[in-house]
Amino acid sequence: MVTSRDVAQLAGVSQMTVSRVLQGSTKVAAATRERVLAAMKEAGYRPHAAARTMRTRRTGTVGVVVADITNPFYPQLLEAVGQALGEAGQRMVLWNAPDPGGSSALAALDDGTVDGLIFTTVTEGSTELAEVLRRGDPVVLLHRGLDSLECDQVTTDNVAGGRAVADYLVAGGHTRIGFLRGPELPSTARHREQGFRDRLAELGHPLAEALTRQGGFAHDVARTAMRDLLSQDEPPTAVFCANDLTALGAVDAAVSLGHRVPQDVWVVGYDDIAMAAWDSYDLTTVRQPIADMARAAVGLLLERVEDRSLPPRRQTFPSELTIRGSTARTAWPGA
Amino acid sequence: MVTSRDVAQLAGVSQMTVSRVLQGSTKVAAATRERVLAAMKEAGYRPHAAARTMRTRRTGTVGVVVADITNPFYPQLLEAVGQALGEAGQRMVLWNAPDPGGSSALAALDDGTVDGLIFTTVTEGSTELAEVLRRGDPVVLLHRGLDSLECDQVTTDNVAGGRAVADYLVAGGHTRIGFLRGPELPSTARHREQGFRDRLAELGHPLAEALTRQGGFAHDVARTAMRDLLSQDEPPTAVFCANDLTALGAVDAAVSLGHRVPQDVWVVGYDDIAMAAWDSYDLTTVRQPIADMARAAVGLLLERVEDRSLPPRRQTFPSELTIRGSTARTAWPGA
Repeated sequence: MVTSRDVAQLAGVSQMTVSRVLQGSTKVAAATRERVLAAMKEAGYRPHAAARTMRTRRTGTVGVVVADITNPFYPQLLEAVGQALGEAGQRMVLWNAPDPGGSSALAALDDGTVDGLIFTTVTEGSTELAEVLRRGDPVVLLHRGLDSLECDQVTTDNVAGGRAVADYLVAGGHTRIGFLRGPELPSTARHREQGFRDRLAELGHPLAEALTRQGGFAHDVARTAMRDLLSQDEPPTAVFCANDLTALGAVDAAVSLGHRVPQDVWVVGYDDIAMAAWDSYDLTTVRQPIADMARAAVGLLLERVEDRSLPPRRQTFPSELTIRGSTARTAWPGA
Repeated sequence: MVTSRDVAQLAGVSQMTVSRVLQGSTKVAAATRERVLAAMKEAGYRPHAAARTMRTRRTGTVGVVVADITNPFYPQLLEAVGQALGEAGQRMVLWNAPDPGGSSALAALDDGTVDGLIFTTVTEGSTELAEVLRRGDPVVLLHRGLDSLECDQVTTDNVAGGRAVADYLVAGGHTRIGFLRGPELPSTARHREQGFRDRLAELGHPLAEALTRQGGFAHDVARTAMRDLLSQDEPPTAVFCANDLTALGAVDAAVSLGHRVPQDVWVVGYDDIAMAAWDSYDLTTVRQPIADMARAAVGLLLERVEDRSLPPRRQTFPSELTIRGSTARTAWPGA
């Protein structure tokens, strides 16, 4: 993108002079102004970039990028972020981007339409975003992080969450333990699986691949996968699902086959979305402290808006097993 | 807001000349340019407005305003709008505005950050939005409309939907019919209630106020209200809820009290969100054709972006009663 610096160089003047011309200052000599305006034209100086330079203060608007708003977890997270931003006197604008790199949002950051960005559904592989993060631009990763990159990240300890579920199911006497895993790319899915799998192995009950299915972080995919699991000769007696949405699909699979939850099969989710507590599901799950995470992300972002030279920071919140009716309410010291 | 017209008047030149100055055109005499720049300064001409004039083409971005993303209906609607915009080569940016008038979104329209706006949760009373609509700015109301204002609106026939539910419940033999009504302001809630109430009266079963509660378009409010209804000496045998989210709350109230749906009480919702079809709820509801509505709204908006002089247009989609397990599956010619 052409910047006011490029225009200044081309016109042979300082950036301050370019800025004064844009602000319509009468302090600039007419001949100089002519030269600057001609340079803008020649360089193809973009209007939004112009607006950015002309801006004398911040927009007070923060952009949030999400990729999956039909998963109820994200609307809840967005509400919490909006509330935290509101408390800080900031407005929120959202991008629901099929592209997890959020190109449009990055363009808005570039144009100065937003002061900073919070990414909630990042996955490895966006080179554009990685470049922005390396520059120290005001961008914070919330909920999903990037293992490979040093940048501001706010997540929960998904590995510990997965381990806690393994402990709980084995303590509940289960030996045929099933798993509806999430997609491969999100850090949340990978870490939950890693914690669950490692801890089961440590406890002497390694996960059987025959009892593992892809749940896809989607209700319909999970429902089909769970029906398949439950239709086996030796179905699992407890199933951990990589998020709550898939756990609701798993419960519905059981309902559709006339199996009782938890008498015939325990179901455990992850996130503790509002729906998990609704009577029809009453879902045992691992709670993410959504409001605290949102406030932390907003705090890190606003600090970085003020000072881009801050070192990369990671904040990791504990996750908490929340026992409800979709598992027998075993006394459980770990909960 | 100060416009280029104001600047032109103040400088005693045409708007075209102002635009040329902003574009850095060398066709403008130096003295004239001086006058225009001085006028901009004097008038306090705003940089983003300048950017807008400087823009030679559209942003290709449409803004969408929503007020209640934790109601799963809205994420589904937003997905559909995003898809329709994508098919039209447009990007979507969202505002989740507690203020239904969407001030930030209107500012973005003003600044030229977006080409147009779709409001999904408008209610009567926003003078700022009303002003924009009267000007013929590219704004379309989707899902919720404004009775009192002529502007582009895409809604379903909520009155007919309410009437269909009344017909269905009376045909099912119910005489103690309950109602969880929605908030007073949204057109959707008012029209559904009007249709339901009027048709019940026509059929000789006027709605009993003792069987009516405020459901608040929220699960927890509806659950509490339904528990109250069901705890009466003569509880309703069928309850219509003003949207699906409140109907899920009503079903959960029944579950929490050990009442069976539909054996003890029928529950009917409105919207047909994805969750309505999930096995645990299996909810009879009135379907809104979300994808068709989204495409229609995008079509109207893009036409108005091209031509603001178009007359105000209203598109009303039919609503369709969708019978599932939360009511006895009566043969029903009306469905």
